[in-house]
Amino acid sequence: MYYHVDGELVDAADATVSVRDRGFQYGDAVFETLRAYGGQVFAWDAHATRLRASCDALGIDHEHSERDLRGRVHATLAANDLADASVRLSVTRGDQSGSFAPADDADPTVVVVADALPRGGVDGERTWRSPASAATVAVERAADDALPAVAKTHNYLNGILARADAGDADEAILLDDDGRVTGGATSNVFFVDDGVVHTPSLDLPVTPGITRWAVLELAEDAGVPVETGHYTPRDLRDADELFLTNTTWEVRPVSAYDDTTYTTCKVGARLAREFAEEIERRHY
Amino acid sequence: MYYHVDGELVDAADATVSVRDRGFQYGDAVFETLRAYGGQVFAWDAHATRLRASCDALGIDHEHSERDLRGRVHATLAANDLADASVRLSVTRGDQSGSFAPADDADPTVVVVADALPRGGVDGERTWRSPASAATVAVERAADDALPAVAKTHNYLNGILARADAGDADEAILLDDDGRVTGGATSNVFFVDDGVVHTPSLDLPVTPGITRWAVLELAEDAGVPVETGHYTPRDLRDADELFLTNTTWEVRPVSAYDDTTYTTCKVGARLAREFAEEIERRHY
Repeated sequence: MYYHVDGELVDAADATVSVRDRGFQYGDAVFETLRAYGGQVFAWDAHATRLRASCDALGIDHEHSERDLRGRVHATLAANDLADASVRLSVTRGDQSGSFAPADDADPTVVVVADALPRGGVDGERTWRSPASAATVAVERAADDALPAVAKTHNYLNGILARADAGDADEAILLDDDGRVTGGATSNVFFVDDGVVHTPSLDLPVTPGITRWAVLELAEDAGVPVETGHYTPRDLRDADELFLTNTTWEVRPVSAYDDTTYTTCKVGARLAREFAEEIERRHY
Repeated sequence: MYYHVDGELVDAADATVSVRDRGFQYGDAVFETLRAYGGQVFAWDAHATRLRASCDALGIDHEHSERDLRGRVHATLAANDLADASVRLSVTRGDQSGSFAPADDADPTVVVVADALPRGGVDGERTWRSPASAATVAVERAADDALPAVAKTHNYLNGILARADAGDADEAILLDDDGRVTGGATSNVFFVDDGVVHTPSLDLPVTPGITRWAVLELAEDAGVPVETGHYTPRDLRDADELFLTNTTWEVRPVSAYDDTTYTTCKVGARLAREFAEEIERRHY
């Protein structure tokens, strides 16, 4: 495998960052998880916009154009002869030895890591083997005033502690300090009640997921009513169906949440199909 | 310079970690900032105990004994001919490709980075040029339920955002979500009122600083009354004096906090002298 580090394609074994890089020392870095289908990145513009928002939230002032960054992603895919893949694109604040406070003259490090993934889509194999189990965890979602949810950063311990707390469950459901559902450790959560699709609104510390956004658009196009708002675990347990979204899973049904089991994911399956068809339209 | 990475001394320019190391990808790592005086690490046992607590909080199960880790620190000091230095010792969860949830079979990466520092102590030069200015920031300290303060981790964006928010001030003072003072971005805060030394108690999301602990012990030994509790910015502004502690600064007086200026740091200076004398006793 080849990865792309600081402007060059390097063998995966040599793909490293300095121990003085702030991305390593402090998690002072932002990232995007991308999916490539047929060699093309899905929803690049949306990811590039979010990466920019993450950089803005952290004050990382990098000079790499979106075209430059996309070029590195595609160079990595090409070097590994990957058509269907998961790609992690990171931008760190770089090495600024000697000061804890971020300096203005950042020299960011750009890292691209890629892994082959099943194709997904209408006829392809999924990236997950079965519907997910999910569990509410005691680990609380970091508040926006402490770590802004709008920024996808290398400070990911909140999610890691949550997933560890979830034990055997595939995904942890994190609440905010008022007990409201915010989402999974690495996914957005949706539930369906009386045919209406619900998902936590972005005024809560909720990751503004690209797949979340795509699914909401597709639902609207398909005439499926959608509401965003504030919900409790009880709302999820009382729902007819539950599903999770992220770039890797796309749309993944939930079969069990805490002590509740769900026997259907009709609306979720429909939106998963719409999503798969959208990919086919865009990538073939 | 030589750093110590994954068991070997390497030239600083070659001191790197894999881009797949979880310490880089997620800030999934713990660290200690150590001070060496005359070639010996100050309060190693206290630092080793805290490092263990940090690992426990994150479930990083490493097999390196404290003696092994101390050996790497001292090897780094010796390789660079450093007697008086700042040392950063990190333990990451290592590379666990393919799973977000931490696996049990961690292969941690140990990194030691060192920098020369002024000697400090009774007659030595300090590491800071002047008393500090400090400012209350809007960035809120991450709650214990989201990121446990007992763990010193590479998830340090909360402090970085706070320091950036503090503008020209040397240190940011972070409050919890109830408006209570928790401390600085990289320091513990103390204030003195009517001869009594106060500092936020550890039931709040407060870093259990080694220098904080040493200063509290020294104050007690010197018969200076000490109280820990919950305080507001107003308590700090109404105080007679204010000072900050951390491993690098030792005891640093505060000359200005928000709109308040302090004309004295008598008790702080006394404790700084006690601390310097303690170092002389231990390290000469």
